[in-house]
Amino acid sequence: MENFAFYSPTYFVFGKEEENKTGKYVRRFGGSKVLIHYGGGSIVRSGLLDRVKASLKEEGIEYVELGGVKPNPRSGLVYEGIDLCRKEQVDFVLAVGGGSTIDSAKAIAAGVVYEGDFWDYYQGKDITKALPIGTILTISAAGSEGSPDSVITNENGMYKRGASGEALRPAFSILNPALTQTLSTFQIACGITDIMAHLFERYFTTTQEVEVTDRMIEGLLLAMIHEAPRVIQNHDNYQAQANIMWAGMMAHNDSCGVGRTQDWASHDIEHELSALYDCAHGAGLAVVFPAWMTYNMKHDMNRFAQLAVRVWGCQMDFAHPENTAKAGIAALKQFFKSIGMPSNFTELGAKEEDIEKMAHTACYGDVRKGTFGGFVKLNENDVANIYRLML
Amino acid sequence: MENFAFYSPTYFVFGKEEENKTGKYVRRFGGSKVLIHYGGGSIVRSGLLDRVKASLKEEGIEYVELGGVKPNPRSGLVYEGIDLCRKEQVDFVLAVGGGSTIDSAKAIAAGVVYEGDFWDYYQGKDITKALPIGTILTISAAGSEGSPDSVITNENGMYKRGASGEALRPAFSILNPALTQTLSTFQIACGITDIMAHLFERYFTTTQEVEVTDRMIEGLLLAMIHEAPRVIQNHDNYQAQANIMWAGMMAHNDSCGVGRTQDWASHDIEHELSALYDCAHGAGLAVVFPAWMTYNMKHDMNRFAQLAVRVWGCQMDFAHPENTAKAGIAALKQFFKSIGMPSNFTELGAKEEDIEKMAHTACYGDVRKGTFGGFVKLNENDVANIYRLML
Repeated sequence: MENFAFYSPTYFVFGKEEENKTGKYVRRFGGSKVLIHYGGGSIVRSGLLDRVKASLKEEGIEYVELGGVKPNPRSGLVYEGIDLCRKEQVDFVLAVGGGSTIDSAKAIAAGVVYEGDFWDYYQGKDITKALPIGTILTISAAGSEGSPDSVITNENGMYKRGASGEALRPAFSILNPALTQTLSTFQIACGITDIMAHLFERYFTTTQEVEVTDRMIEGLLLAMIHEAPRVIQNHDNYQAQANIMWAGMMAHNDSCGVGRTQDWASHDIEHELSALYDCAHGAGLAVVFPAWMTYNMKHDMNRFAQLAVRVWGCQMDFAHPENTAKAGIAALKQFFKSIGMPSNFTELGAKEEDIEKMAHTACYGDVRKGTFGGFVKLNENDVANIYRLML
Repeated sequence: MENFAFYSPTYFVFGKEEENKTGKYVRRFGGSKVLIHYGGGSIVRSGLLDRVKASLKEEGIEYVELGGVKPNPRSGLVYEGIDLCRKEQVDFVLAVGGGSTIDSAKAIAAGVVYEGDFWDYYQGKDITKALPIGTILTISAAGSEGSPDSVITNENGMYKRGASGEALRPAFSILNPALTQTLSTFQIACGITDIMAHLFERYFTTTQEVEVTDRMIEGLLLAMIHEAPRVIQNHDNYQAQANIMWAGMMAHNDSCGVGRTQDWASHDIEHELSALYDCAHGAGLAVVFPAWMTYNMKHDMNRFAQLAVRVWGCQMDFAHPENTAKAGIAALKQFFKSIGMPSNFTELGAKEEDIEKMAHTACYGDVRKGTFGGFVKLNENDVANIYRLML
């Protein structure tokens, strides 16, 4: 295990109707004037936004609003949010929504107290401060409610980049599984895929002898595989939604990723797809991951076989571990299909003729250096080959 | 899953030589004059205490010292520590040691800023404030480095009681697995047992459909079972020590115990043994747990069978789940034996004639109400029967 620091100081409040206490938590973590940041009309129609406002009023907390966050959140709205917060002297940013809304809120919270262009942070500058952030999560997926990460799409060129820093960990996050019951089957399945991707991205490592985090990741994957069909079949299954929601947080607050190299190439490969076609991030990952695994399994066949045996219940083929590794990837493909995820470029709406361009942008766009990946370093040719496995 | 709040704001620093940066972390978390609290001579002899002092000096942080913490830490030393901190105007308590030292430090940190008798907290009073606490962990066991808990033995009657409160979570904890390599085999085995007990105590629940935390607990147990023989065989196996150390923290910071009833009866039953015979807490637990399981498995045979199958690799006997449950308990007994733990009263140094007295104290001592336990409520008769299974 490598040396590490782990700091997850977010106050998690989990359960039914906890969003009605939002004002209390904003107060506890120092907010007196709040930006309520959200996406589309669903939280208005469901009455959630009104309940949150009522809770703030009850505590005598002022607020301003900024809706309109889109999936794959854009830089334009971040600039708008930063201007609004400065003008209104906001001291707390409250995200009501999913990963996109939370990521946008994090960018605003950091940008408000930074004299330069917030995009500097998405080009690698250290984030040393941000306004405190609170979240009310409405979809189990991104894990942004417990993570120090944020991903934003720069509208000047339509490319996604991530930023990370302790200051972006939310002060509090309210997780009410009942809020996820009104999502569509497609949205739920995309969320499940994203959570599992966060686990795979930690699982594929070059660090040896990390049994404790291997086992935690496998445990979370097993829980996801158990709960996914239950929640797809019946969105009102509160217990299944609850298990998935906690797994989504644990998958990405890094308690099971510490002390080991990780591999985020799949997320980067997917980001090109969702930036270009505006497809759902989770749907993109469902297509990317089996291809990434197939291309890279030769680098550590035993690790892929271990996943297949421990998580997918495959029998170990001791004479031919590659057969076991392949059986695990086939099981993953079948699983994604069973929850309604796409499995190739056509189903995703992606085009073969864009492969070279995407591979180039993934490797050389913006501040990229030509290769990326922690488990295996991929170059432009590798990335193009992985895209071709998705045809 | 039941509603819950989860807050683990400790800054964990993990890896080799991190204790040499202690001063930096004390500074970061607001300390300017420190009580260094520790146990016996081993941290003096190993040079650890000198390195910690050097690191404090380097940051210009003043300190006073209080050594002498014993296993099953005593109230007398806590009073002494409180007096010393008040006299010296200490604003930070630094524990250098294992769970006993950390628990004693927590009691001091809470007691210093409380006008009443600190023992009130161990009789159920809410803990609302404490001095900030830092820890440098020297044994993987109690999990106190990440938990809100503290257990102290009251010398006026020799009984152990626990206190818990968010203010007792350490501000930072330094986890260097190399510091545990000088422990005796017996100490290491006791620590392993304590960690596994913390997992069992969360596993046995009456809450239904908690797959995500079930799977995390099982994953941590599997990692412990993998690493324990490796570390017993070779104390210098840094990687094995590292895996156990992170598992010990995760087992008890409650990230895998949230939203479910837990059962701490086994710890309480053991506390009577270690209070009366001053045996090692882990050694006591190794004797208590198989007995507690055997006595209580009838209340949820499937849960005991699940543990046997998923963690011990037993074959499920679908016609007779009780056989599978029993096979799991037998595997646990064999495991404890294999790492050198005692398996009965004789090996522990306990006496049959004390059973009635211990059962009575466990149920009625101090503030107790006659029954205890979350998975199964035990009365005095049950507790005596469980002790008898240990003969």
